[in-house]
Amino acid sequence: MAVYTDVSDEALQDFLADFAIGDLVSFRGIAEGVENTNFQLRTTEGDFILTLYEKRVNARELPWFLGLMQHLAREGVTCPQPVADRRGETLKTLAGRPAAITTFLPGVWPRTVRGEHCRPLGRALAQLHAAGRSYAPERANALGPTAWAPLLQSCAGGANTVQPGLQAELEQALARIVPAWPGHGGNPTLPRGQIHADLFPDNVFFLNHGVSGLIDFYFACTDYLAYDVAICLNAWCFQPDGAFNVTFARQMLLGYEEVRKLDEAECYAMPVLAQGAAMRFLLTRLYDWINTPADALVTPKNPLDYLKRLRFHLATQTVGGYGL
Amino acid sequence: MAVYTDVSDEALQDFLADFAIGDLVSFRGIAEGVENTNFQLRTTEGDFILTLYEKRVNARELPWFLGLMQHLAREGVTCPQPVADRRGETLKTLAGRPAAITTFLPGVWPRTVRGEHCRPLGRALAQLHAAGRSYAPERANALGPTAWAPLLQSCAGGANTVQPGLQAELEQALARIVPAWPGHGGNPTLPRGQIHADLFPDNVFFLNHGVSGLIDFYFACTDYLAYDVAICLNAWCFQPDGAFNVTFARQMLLGYEEVRKLDEAECYAMPVLAQGAAMRFLLTRLYDWINTPADALVTPKNPLDYLKRLRFHLATQTVGGYGL
Repeated sequence: MAVYTDVSDEALQDFLADFAIGDLVSFRGIAEGVENTNFQLRTTEGDFILTLYEKRVNARELPWFLGLMQHLAREGVTCPQPVADRRGETLKTLAGRPAAITTFLPGVWPRTVRGEHCRPLGRALAQLHAAGRSYAPERANALGPTAWAPLLQSCAGGANTVQPGLQAELEQALARIVPAWPGHGGNPTLPRGQIHADLFPDNVFFLNHGVSGLIDFYFACTDYLAYDVAICLNAWCFQPDGAFNVTFARQMLLGYEEVRKLDEAECYAMPVLAQGAAMRFLLTRLYDWINTPADALVTPKNPLDYLKRLRFHLATQTVGGYGL
Repeated sequence: MAVYTDVSDEALQDFLADFAIGDLVSFRGIAEGVENTNFQLRTTEGDFILTLYEKRVNARELPWFLGLMQHLAREGVTCPQPVADRRGETLKTLAGRPAAITTFLPGVWPRTVRGEHCRPLGRALAQLHAAGRSYAPERANALGPTAWAPLLQSCAGGANTVQPGLQAELEQALARIVPAWPGHGGNPTLPRGQIHADLFPDNVFFLNHGVSGLIDFYFACTDYLAYDVAICLNAWCFQPDGAFNVTFARQMLLGYEEVRKLDEAECYAMPVLAQGAAMRFLLTRLYDWINTPADALVTPKNPLDYLKRLRFHLATQTVGGYGL
């Protein structure tokens, strides 16, 4: 459920009057998405998405996100495009929230990942990385390695209520992952750039066996490109039963390397990057699991799905474990 | 939130292959609606709604509902039209649920009811009643007066946990409403026909100051036409602060009477019908309030909103209290 904030008719009419995009035809809340409120908007001119940014998004960062999306589109990446109003503004206010209208993308996100999705996914991820290279402004990754220990602390021992011993297991994993992180201490650093940082299947639309668009850039940031690959290994390559599908991973990496080769240091670091990615999603899910009120609109996701992934990556020695 | 059941890509492709409605372009869950799962579906031929019927809908009754919608459309009422597959079937199965594709209706439902909505609403309701007259099959109202005492019983005294004294207040109201109900004992009966029975603002789309369509017929049944009017008095004519807006009611009734005159018995019965309508929604909300698990996808609606309405109608003596 994604309609946290509803919009009155008058407010919507006033808002749309600022834009030269025709008259309102249809307006329906979209169920997908957990961070922001999204509406599918149709006017006499076409289809759009209206997004109200909820409290997890820092309003001051929205120009960076919208600018990235505009830049990526100019570089050939299909992603939602902010629509400017009659004054040229894209970031506006509606129902007390920062709000933007973006273009509508055709396509369907895969409910079940199949092998055929993974190679196009890898290509699209590398194209995103290549296109982002010329977007100069940087945004730090607020959920990077330095955030993990404080995030675990903020769960105040709640980990053990989810599974006995989880707190100690996560502390031990952090003690292993953080010192091994690229750039930490004397470790070699890796190529950096703009990464999506949340490229799960529900953010990738497919049409006619190809990727038709990437959406939801509101975790995007400037970080190691290979970390984005490691996030996709977590998000796309584990089966519903928790098993790692090395064929999916190999296809994804082959697709990526069609566009951008991973260098030696990136390949070497892939296991620790994948461990870190599993840790990042485990910790935010753990936090949400412990802190979501029982009457919340969104049911939190089980953090333990990511404990299985974390253990798998901790046991993986080389990028060969991912099929490359 | 309305996506109770998600649909795999393969299942969707197989399902759509049965229809001659073009190729899949877009598929997104709709947030509105609490009973069934709805997706906005776009194909190369146009826009549709895909509905999966969840457990509250009795699958054996679906042909009655779909038949009513087809009949109403033939009679000029704009409502979703079931789309037949290549074999002529409209009711099918998808993801283990009964499923149907219906046409997409333009328009926006009013988040805030304004006076200008009420006259077109009244006209649309009367047009629905007129059009339904020639649909012969009947469906009993499963939530009519005989259902109310058992529904209150099934809450097992939970009413008092919502508000002290509520159980006794509802029992007293039932003891007054049920014997006064049209057709009960020696009471005069009223004109019967097909009623929508759930015509809340989110089921009425407006466009260019007129009603562009009515949706969600899955509570429709054969009952007193004036009871549908009484439901709309409850659903449309109370302000967010709980006050009754007699101007809205008058506009709605005037709109209704442009198409179909209320007879003397209907006018006389309006207060008790409105009491019954308030009772019906109060009781189902009370039941949901008590029985909804804390982690449910849908947040139940507060039953006490309808206690205020019930008290108002119990204090109303004549249809003049509704502005007519």
